[in-house]
Amino acid sequence: MAESTTPSEQQSGTDQRLVKGARARASIARHAADVASVEGLTGVSIGRLAADLGLSKSGIATLFGTKEALQVAAVKSAREAFIERVIAPTMSHPRGHDRLRVLIDLWFDHITDPTFPGGCFRVATISEFDSKPGPVRDAIIDDRRDWMAFLAKEIRRAQEQGHLGERDADVIAFELEAVVSAANTAQQMGDDWGVATARAIVDNLMGEAAD
Amino acid sequence: MAESTTPSEQQSGTDQRLVKGARARASIARHAADVASVEGLTGVSIGRLAADLGLSKSGIATLFGTKEALQVAAVKSAREAFIERVIAPTMSHPRGHDRLRVLIDLWFDHITDPTFPGGCFRVATISEFDSKPGPVRDAIIDDRRDWMAFLAKEIRRAQEQGHLGERDADVIAFELEAVVSAANTAQQMGDDWGVATARAIVDNLMGEAAD
Repeated sequence: MAESTTPSEQQSGTDQRLVKGARARASIARHAADVASVEGLTGVSIGRLAADLGLSKSGIATLFGTKEALQVAAVKSAREAFIERVIAPTMSHPRGHDRLRVLIDLWFDHITDPTFPGGCFRVATISEFDSKPGPVRDAIIDDRRDWMAFLAKEIRRAQEQGHLGERDADVIAFELEAVVSAANTAQQMGDDWGVATARAIVDNLMGEAAD
Repeated sequence: MAESTTPSEQQSGTDQRLVKGARARASIARHAADVASVEGLTGVSIGRLAADLGLSKSGIATLFGTKEALQVAAVKSAREAFIERVIAPTMSHPRGHDRLRVLIDLWFDHITDPTFPGGCFRVATISEFDSKPGPVRDAIIDDRRDWMAFLAKEIRRAQEQGHLGERDADVIAFELEAVVSAANTAQQMGDDWGVATARAIVDNLMGEAAD
């Protein structure tokens, strides 16, 4: 009788296995995002991650199923890391111009002190997958669309407070995204002038329109 | 005596082999650029190109040596295709604002009616190789630097004619490059709004500064 377990102990064991599985999954997906930022998502395979993390291929295959599912998990993990680093800390600042300013500074920090070893995950994977339809591209596009919508919403609020002029908020968001992506490329190429130039263009976009 | 060849016939044979070799090299490098625009330069291997083109691996290896040399050749081939499509036709237009306007229209055409199946080669490969030092990255960076210098020179000439205001020409070139790259990403994702928005931003940059 000493070795038997009650139903609630059994449940607790199941819960613990689920938690352990979810943690392992999150940690593998995060490493996959790190690899993808340097090598591209194409470089993310079950074999590669098994070798990097000292896990068995079959263990990773059990958690994710296919290489494609692992790539989608990497996109979602990168999205969460971006939200954590760039978006979440802005929530304590007042909506509108103040929050937008903090958001843009954190966005630049995420590029100049990169969250991922290969720089912006979004830039690295969009150009890799933009010509390859499928669930990975869908996940990348969904993430980009959500981010652009969030950015435009914050710009619109700042405009309601009398900042950033009367240009369409979606157009300003598109232009900001283009220039910050170019800053990421410059950073990765060791082009300090490019990073400083991008920052000046963004400040100009933020300030110029406030006149 | 009928089967023997004179020294000049031998020379002619050598020349023909050289010409044939150079043509084969150019055609293989161009296919490598097409593949890289979709799959990334990592997808460009001697085996892959041999299979695509129905050639022997040893034949391609003889012409290029290593996978890395083949990747560098792809970068150079893409550079030549860009010059041919976007830069060369502008030479018949007067320097300055007129030439710059044609240059920018051709640059957009090269993106909306893509020269390469996967869209802009430069965008596709910069984010792939920006974190990987070596001869491929050097070739990509050299190409980008030359293009940005050419663009800034044309902007400076237009400014000497009283167009595009007094902002630093290198800064305007950086901003144009950022927005046109974003147009390429939008085009590859089937985002017509993004392409039209990029075009409007560029027209604004070109015109606004002419006031």
